[in-house]
Amino acid sequence: MKKILLLNGPNLNLLGTREPEKYGNVTLNQIEEKLRVKCADYGVELVCFQSNHEGDLVDKIQEAKNIGIEAVIINPGAYTHTSVAIRDAFLSVQIPFIEVHLTNIFSREPFRHHSYLSDIAAGCIIGLGAKGYFLAAETLLNSN
Amino acid sequence: MKKILLLNGPNLNLLGTREPEKYGNVTLNQIEEKLRVKCADYGVELVCFQSNHEGDLVDKIQEAKNIGIEAVIINPGAYTHTSVAIRDAFLSVQIPFIEVHLTNIFSREPFRHHSYLSDIAAGCIIGLGAKGYFLAAETLLNSN
Amino acid sequence: MKKILLLNGPNLNLLGTREPEKYGNVTLNQIEEKLRVKCADYGVELVCFQSNHEGDLVDKIQEAKNIGIEAVIINPGAYTHTSVAIRDAFLSVQIPFIEVHLTNIFSREPFRHHSYLSDIAAGCIIGLGAKGYFLAAETLLNSN
Amino acid sequence: MKKILLLNGPNLNLLGTREPEKYGNVTLNQIEEKLRVKCADYGVELVCFQSNHEGDLVDKIQEAKNIGIEAVIINPGAYTHTSVAIRDAFLSVQIPFIEVHLTNIFSREPFRHHSYLSDIAAGCIIGLGAKGYFLAAETLLNSN
Amino acid sequence: MKKILLLNGPNLNLLGTREPEKYGNVTLNQIEEKLRVKCADYGVELVCFQSNHEGDLVDKIQEAKNIGIEAVIINPGAYTHTSVAIRDAFLSVQIPFIEVHLTNIFSREPFRHHSYLSDIAAGCIIGLGAKGYFLAAETLLNSN
Amino acid sequence: MKKILLLNGPNLNLLGTREPEKYGNVTLNQIEEKLRVKCADYGVELVCFQSNHEGDLVDKIQEAKNIGIEAVIINPGAYTHTSVAIRDAFLSVQIPFIEVHLTNIFSREPFRHHSYLSDIAAGCIIGLGAKGYFLAAETLLNSN
Amino acid sequence: MKKILLLNGPNLNLLGTREPEKYGNVTLNQIEEKLRVKCADYGVELVCFQSNHEGDLVDKIQEAKNIGIEAVIINPGAYTHTSVAIRDAFLSVQIPFIEVHLTNIFSREPFRHHSYLSDIAAGCIIGLGAKGYFLAAETLLNSN
Amino acid sequence: MKKILLLNGPNLNLLGTREPEKYGNVTLNQIEEKLRVKCADYGVELVCFQSNHEGDLVDKIQEAKNIGIEAVIINPGAYTHTSVAIRDAFLSVQIPFIEVHLTNIFSREPFRHHSYLSDIAAGCIIGLGAKGYFLAAETLLNSN
Amino acid sequence: MKKILLLNGPNLNLLGTREPEKYGNVTLNQIEEKLRVKCADYGVELVCFQSNHEGDLVDKIQEAKNIGIEAVIINPGAYTHTSVAIRDAFLSVQIPFIEVHLTNIFSREPFRHHSYLSDIAAGCIIGLGAKGYFLAAETLLNSN
Amino acid sequence: MKKILLLNGPNLNLLGTREPEKYGNVTLNQIEEKLRVKCADYGVELVCFQSNHEGDLVDKIQEAKNIGIEAVIINPGAYTHTSVAIRDAFLSVQIPFIEVHLTNIFSREPFRHHSYLSDIAAGCIIGLGAKGYFLAAETLLNSN
Amino acid sequence: MKKILLLNGPNLNLLGTREPEKYGNVTLNQIEEKLRVKCADYGVELVCFQSNHEGDLVDKIQEAKNIGIEAVIINPGAYTHTSVAIRDAFLSVQIPFIEVHLTNIFSREPFRHHSYLSDIAAGCIIGLGAKGYFLAAETLLNSN
Amino acid sequence: MKKILLLNGPNLNLLGTREPEKYGNVTLNQIEEKLRVKCADYGVELVCFQSNHEGDLVDKIQEAKNIGIEAVIINPGAYTHTSVAIRDAFLSVQIPFIEVHLTNIFSREPFRHHSYLSDIAAGCIIGLGAKGYFLAAETLLNSN
Repeated sequence: MKKILLLNGPNLNLLGTREPEKYGNVTLNQIEEKLRVKCADYGVELVCFQSNHEGDLVDKIQEAKNIGIEAVIINPGAYTHTSVAIRDAFLSVQIPFIEVHLTNIFSREPFRHHSYLSDIAAGCIIGLGAKGYFLAAETLLNSN
Repeated sequence: MKKILLLNGPNLNLLGTREPEKYGNVTLNQIEEKLRVKCADYGVELVCFQSNHEGDLVDKIQEAKNIGIEAVIINPGAYTHTSVAIRDAFLSVQIPFIEVHLTNIFSREPFRHHSYLSDIAAGCIIGLGAKGYFLAAETLLNSN
Repeated sequence: MKKILLLNGPNLNLLGTREPEKYGNVTLNQIEEKLRVKCADYGVELVCFQSNHEGDLVDKIQEAKNIGIEAVIINPGAYTHTSVAIRDAFLSVQIPFIEVHLTNIFSREPFRHHSYLSDIAAGCIIGLGAKGYFLAAETLLNSN
Repeated sequence: MKKILLLNGPNLNLLGTREPEKYGNVTLNQIEEKLRVKCADYGVELVCFQSNHEGDLVDKIQEAKNIGIEAVIINPGAYTHTSVAIRDAFLSVQIPFIEVHLTNIFSREPFRHHSYLSDIAAGCIIGLGAKGYFLAAETLLNSN
Repeated sequence: MKKILLLNGPNLNLLGTREPEKYGNVTLNQIEEKLRVKCADYGVELVCFQSNHEGDLVDKIQEAKNIGIEAVIINPGAYTHTSVAIRDAFLSVQIPFIEVHLTNIFSREPFRHHSYLSDIAAGCIIGLGAKGYFLAAETLLNSN
Repeated sequence: MKKILLLNGPNLNLLGTREPEKYGNVTLNQIEEKLRVKCADYGVELVCFQSNHEGDLVDKIQEAKNIGIEAVIINPGAYTHTSVAIRDAFLSVQIPFIEVHLTNIFSREPFRHHSYLSDIAAGCIIGLGAKGYFLAAETLLNSN
Repeated sequence: MKKILLLNGPNLNLLGTREPEKYGNVTLNQIEEKLRVKCADYGVELVCFQSNHEGDLVDKIQEAKNIGIEAVIINPGAYTHTSVAIRDAFLSVQIPFIEVHLTNIFSREPFRHHSYLSDIAAGCIIGLGAKGYFLAAETLLNSN
Repeated sequence: MKKILLLNGPNLNLLGTREPEKYGNVTLNQIEEKLRVKCADYGVELVCFQSNHEGDLVDKIQEAKNIGIEAVIINPGAYTHTSVAIRDAFLSVQIPFIEVHLTNIFSREPFRHHSYLSDIAAGCIIGLGAKGYFLAAETLLNSN
Repeated sequence: MKKILLLNGPNLNLLGTREPEKYGNVTLNQIEEKLRVKCADYGVELVCFQSNHEGDLVDKIQEAKNIGIEAVIINPGAYTHTSVAIRDAFLSVQIPFIEVHLTNIFSREPFRHHSYLSDIAAGCIIGLGAKGYFLAAETLLNSN
Repeated sequence: MKKILLLNGPNLNLLGTREPEKYGNVTLNQIEEKLRVKCADYGVELVCFQSNHEGDLVDKIQEAKNIGIEAVIINPGAYTHTSVAIRDAFLSVQIPFIEVHLTNIFSREPFRHHSYLSDIAAGCIIGLGAKGYFLAAETLLNSN
Repeated sequence: MKKILLLNGPNLNLLGTREPEKYGNVTLNQIEEKLRVKCADYGVELVCFQSNHEGDLVDKIQEAKNIGIEAVIINPGAYTHTSVAIRDAFLSVQIPFIEVHLTNIFSREPFRHHSYLSDIAAGCIIGLGAKGYFLAAETLLNSN
Repeated sequence: MKKILLLNGPNLNLLGTREPEKYGNVTLNQIEEKLRVKCADYGVELVCFQSNHEGDLVDKIQEAKNIGIEAVIINPGAYTHTSVAIRDAFLSVQIPFIEVHLTNIFSREPFRHHSYLSDIAAGCIIGLGAKGYFLAAETLLNSN
């Protein structure tokens, strides 16, 4: 594996600056940086992208194949529950991905219990905070 | 209160120019202008924004805190019924907002009866036409 | 407009004396008085009526036309969610009405999310406390 | 058979004076009078009662047995769809009844398609206007 | 009115010969005969037809207009709950019809509570046994 | 504890005189009398009230606090399943209550399986006949 | 037992000639013949009938009693899931029947999981291929 | 391709003569004739069949293979929503078919939104009037 | 007709390059080109637009009227099932449109069976591959 | 009555030692002891049994008849909501039982609102804490 | 085939001793013995096991492969409707099984209409009493 | 942290020996051994337990606190979807736990999409095979 894409959906750019009691106080940048280092240790490049726009996330997933991405770690945020377009993007490019949620979506509102991505994901890591990104990375890095 | 944000969702830029029998013939610009004046009377600045893009509305809500917005009046249009991302943006920034609908959403298609925002709104004003914006403003201006 | 009817349903007679943290501490009498004054300013008579009895509210709505009521402001309380009879009374007399709820019914029990009146109301004002009555009145008074 | 009770629920007192295009322009009094005559022809006394109060209808059904009522013709109006209490009153007194609806409840709002009374009624006559009362009476009068 | 069609659906040919405790012991022929006489008294011809075949009932309804039928009395039997084709036949020919059920369909299995015809019927008479046919006829004969 | 209110809803006034095989043949008066004695043994006054009117029950619950009622034993009868107003009355006065049903509501029609009161009751006693009232009283009397 | 009726519904005439991997390659004629022989061994006559027409199957069930049928083995095919008319025919003639399905209807489309006949059948044999007919016959032949 | 079957379900024989505002005023015969000519241009024979009987349509589909039909254009009319038997006939003969609806079934009653055929159809053409038949034919004729 | 707009939603830009076994191997550009030529034959200009962004599609539909578009052919892709905003855009501009789906959405995941557009479309063409665009165009071009 | 069985389901062995704020701080042993004494006062033997194993509870109920148990007091704990096997055991042995729940199951998670036992129980006592066991015993002891 | 396992779930050990009117008066032992003899006739050993414990049944199914079981006849009793664990055991060991129910589960409580095993069973025999076991055995013995 | 409990539910003892294409070919013993070593590296003792019996798992969780378990890694297998008892055991002992599933439960049967444990879990790791256990351990070991 040479390249992994880390995708974060809407409102995850606020990580660490808002509601720290719920999401922790590490910023997304810090997470991305730390994860980049970890991947580099394995000789893998980490590409990071966050957007509040569903279409941007679709664009990025389509672009992934062209730039040699072999796996995606995605926290789709709110689009987990509403986006068929992101699902279709993954179905189209056929790149394996791991779905990560920082909080326990099963203990929140009922509409958060369903994901349009989970059934086509390689796996899901839910409720373990920012650590979830690292567990996902570890899974991918050691699956070589 | 110093600054209020007026947010309008998809297709509300067409106000006054399309289906006047349903939405009246006042344009969004005219409403914004009249509302700006009213706010100014109270020494409050009104920031206005409309977009057909879910992501733009999320971006704007995130930005609101940085520019000192203390309350939001939002007519989320179609995104009322489909956007968890806008809900999450409000949950993140914790700025109180009033939800306004021009038409009576309860007398239209069943999928319009549910809002992803109402339960976290400060209040809802529904079916009273453009007047709804003014009632919302009045509520905020007099709550000082 | 010459005469407006203010109708309050079950348990709203307790306003201001019970659960002030939820409903505020202004009594229904005080609200009625203040609203009566406001209407008088516009040369409009406000008729006030509260009852815990579904049938009384139906009787009153039927009577409304005979005594020249041109619009109704109603907070149907618990009957919002269970009374087809009140709906039918409004359908029969064909007097426009605005539905007011003090609390945000969408953030309470699921059975409070549905109203038997909303789809035939002129509009709804929800979750803005006692202020909701005044916004409703303002809408009616200025629609002349 | 000696005595029949004609019960009419909420808003049926407005018959003939409101929405004649939907309910016809014969008043409830006229119907009651005409029906009383018809019953008298058969030597049967017709007792008539209308109320907008669910409790009054329950009271009347309970009282029915004491005053020798042998059958009831009931148009429960809006309480058709919401009153378990009226159902229980009938279950308690065990007097057979025929349920009459003036309009076709199956072509109206979905919540009007269900009746809390139909499954324990002797029969139902629906959508045939005021004629329904007379057909019900005829059924009872000729079942002697 | 010159001609009425009496339509009976599947298994109604067994009337009077099977399960008399449920359906009475009058045969369909006897009912048809008695009803024919009644209609003749009003100078109206009664055309009778029974079939266990959904398609036959559709054919007959289509044919009705050509032979001058002005109204239909139909007991669709089991097809009440499963036939959109019969509904469409009535929608096509636009002849008013009254739906009759001998037993109280609301006190039987849940799937019998729904009718594909009721909402487009002129009216329904349910649970009053064979008498239902005569009440339907009376309604039509006296509506001239 | 000084005062307990015993509330009985619609049709419970018929206890002992109708359907004894289902409800036993003790009258409501006899139950009230016996229960009053039991309470008196503990130096507690029992206030008894029965009504077929939802509004009366609401009125009584509101009044309870004013007359020093500390706990309520209620058999809401049919209003168990349809009255949000009674629920709201209890929520308003915040007097603890025990819900009693004479018959086993879970072995009757599905609509009787849901109660608008149970989740806010101090407890429920179901299906044990008139004995349920005494068990409820015992619970309250011994909780001093 | 003297006479058994074997009824097969729509598309079962194609048995053995179409989709043999799903339904086997024995024809319906061969099954009928083999079953007729087996019944003859017990001195029982087997009457066989197949039709694609719901009405034909209803006709045949009605006719069964007249020709002395004492039990029916039925594979209702697609009408299993859509025919109330066949159910009613069985309810009318009161002849016991065993319901047979060649394939496992529970591992196919959800609408095949429900049968309008099963709850009134003497029993069901499902998913055992053509053998199911023989097991049904054996049950009937040995129940003498 | 040598032979195409055009199947029309119940009430489609009335095309052009009833409700022209909804279905146009071209008769089914005219459509069949015009379509036959178009097919002939491609050297393809068009076989036409219409019936109000579900069983007849099943029979015809079974027969199709024997007479060399290679594709079917079907407007199943009301049986779209109720016939598993027609679905099974197509599953048995394995002839590809295109489903055509003249009107927009999605803007009509909810029970018309589901088709028992669509998921196994080669394609669906909905709401384009009689033109739908020609588009279907064109698809088949040009797929050679 | 002078101008038609061809709109394609998310992931349709990948047509012909991904999953050819499912979507064919013709690219969107090739389809657009071929369709442009066909329209030109009728003197009609074809405007083409594809986007992965819901908001862009809304913008384009709003713009359509200003640039003289008289009809739209739209394959909304994933937004078919999630976008009320696109529905509202069409409701606002009141330009007729035909909805096209390349694959048979009824044989895919259940959430693809519902479209937010179908009931307001002029018609739908589903499951016929890229040919669907041409059938839609043909319908529009010949409707002049 | 000579012998009563007290059955407690999973996790009730922890009573008094865990979550005292929810379940009180009396242990199951203490309750059993106190209840045994009370029964002894009436000359009735109390047999006590607790298990976390569904099968053990089924075994015990089956065994009950053999050892002369005449009534059961059961708090089925979590198996209330999931065990058909325990229901069937009661249906088999036909020993009357009273169902007791310490907490108010109606104010907890929705899946706790349904019991597989309630409809076949002699009665239910819910939400009154350990006192519920004593009320159940009292009911049984005094029903002699 | 050399060895068949007969598995019986909870409460089936009571067969013949309880509710004979529902389950017959043959004991499980007698059935097992008779079935053992029948199998022996075919040179097949029958292993019999009954338990009220879900886990025991899972253990036994796992063990089956190790002891050379080639097919299972199972009457899962109550676990039919609640056990995913037994389903998973069958999915794990991949031994074909026939599901038998003595009574007609479709004419009992709704929760008995669903089986967690049926869709993966080789077949189901339902409602034919103890005879069902023998039909299942016959199917297996003759499938050699 | 000193002690972690690894709990495996029904059929997980078959890991590595059955369906390796679905669950891999590492045995549960091998996983337990490898995990024990990893924990030992951190000075943490790993206690391992597997059972096919729901009650055993409940017993073990109750016991956990007594033996000083500070966290649990659980793969509840089939009991994930059916066991409220295990949920209650965790609620009682209040030991944090991570839920692990080897396969992607969201791409399997619908009844596997719901877990009775997830909402009270510290987190969930789903679909990543045996690696999931190690990620869970890592999370716990590094959370010290």
